Amino acid sequence: MGKEDMLLYWGSGSPPCIRTMIALEEKGFSGYPQKLIEFGKKEHKTEEVLALNPRGQVPAFKDGDVIINESYAIIHYLQHRYPDSGTNLLPGDCKQQGFVLQRYYEVQAAFYPKVLDLFKTVMNKEATDEAKAKKGEELVEEATRFDAYLKDGTFLAGDQFSMADIDFITILLLLDRQEFKLEGRFPNMFAYWQRLKDRPSVVASYPPHFKTSESTRYFASC
Amino acid sequence: MGKEDMLLYWGSGSPPCIRTMIALEEKGFSGYPQKLIEFGKKEHKTEEVLALNPRGQVPAFKDGDVIINESYAIIHYLQHRYPDSGTNLLPGDCKQQGFVLQRYYEVQAAFYPKVLDLFKTVMNKEATDEAKAKKGEELVEEATRFDAYLKDGTFLAGDQFSMADIDFITILLLLDRQEFKLEGRFPNMFAYWQRLKDRPSVVASYPPHFKTSESTRYFASC
Repeated sequence: MGKEDMLLYWGSGSPPCIRTMIALEEKGFSGYPQKLIEFGKKEHKTEEVLALNPRGQVPAFKDGDVIINESYAIIHYLQHRYPDSGTNLLPGDCKQQGFVLQRYYEVQAAFYPKVLDLFKTVMNKEATDEAKAKKGEELVEEATRFDAYLKDGTFLAGDQFSMADIDFITILLLLDRQEFKLEGRFPNMFAYWQRLKDRPSVVASYPPHFKTSESTRYFASC
Repeated sequence: MGKEDMLLYWGSGSPPCIRTMIALEEKGFSGYPQKLIEFGKKEHKTEEVLALNPRGQVPAFKDGDVIINESYAIIHYLQHRYPDSGTNLLPGDCKQQGFVLQRYYEVQAAFYPKVLDLFKTVMNKEATDEAKAKKGEELVEEATRFDAYLKDGTFLAGDQFSMADIDFITILLLLDRQEFKLEGRFPNMFAYWQRLKDRPSVVASYPPHFKTSESTRYFASC
């Protein structure tokens, strides 16, 4: 088994696709077979994608005869199956492993939903300014918590890059795109993003349409 | 290290607590030290809970000097740290492992949110009947999908109990409590629940106040 047996369907700008791609790069599979689908043409609903993912969503991923479509599951799977390839995303030490798992799930359960909530609210034409402001405040509160987490470490769960960083970087990439201001407000997160935004796995996973289109600046006033 | 070094703070009826407790039982730690907190007395905001979980939420869990509070992280941690204790929640075979991880995250990402959404909507006095009906339909749609998943297997990811079942059982326990009708509508899920509801880990984790108070029957009409 190797990267030539893999196949990833992905769409530009999808957070689950970004985090999947960062993981594939970190695990040393640069150049894995992939197909970029266009959401605008509903290519995620084509038969070839549906054959992998009956939900008609991306990422849709296979590694030989293993089919996995949930991005968080793909990250975990790649680490379990290829522990010695590329970056070690989950340390062996018990205490450190517990810490990485805690942060990995905490980003999923507590931080990412605040980003999604705000995004959905600002996109909703019927949402009141008050509702938008409330969602913005909730995101700021969570960002403040994660900024404090970064006070003592280079990475989100200590001194080594781990699976916890993959989703966290994905969020920072999206916040940066939407011009959510980190500098001056969240100094540790800002420094983290400056350190990691040019990491090869992140550069390779940057959504192509972010490079060629203007930001909608949805979070600029939050 | 052993169960005597563990401590779990939990509250009755909390889904994250139920799934944490099922995992602890499955991994063979019956009788682990635990403290039941009362939400009504705001005991999850006491100093002893906050010392473990600064968010003031349960579960709050420690295993020696490892502190983990995200329920999904606890499940994963227990399996990683104690692979040979109790039930093996994550098979070694690559294909099967990928399948278990896919289902584990799919329950989290796709099924559980529909339950929460409906619960929040029926609890919201300002929600319209139309909004409630819509959330009910979304839950039925997802339940239909998971019912089909169970067509060929004894458990959610094949023939062995796995981490994917823990969260799934937790959801079925809640649906049962809220009188969401499975029988006749979701035959595979109904059979699964009948088979598993008396499993020792599930019985040991059943919320005490569910035994002594009437169901609110929130989902009875969905």
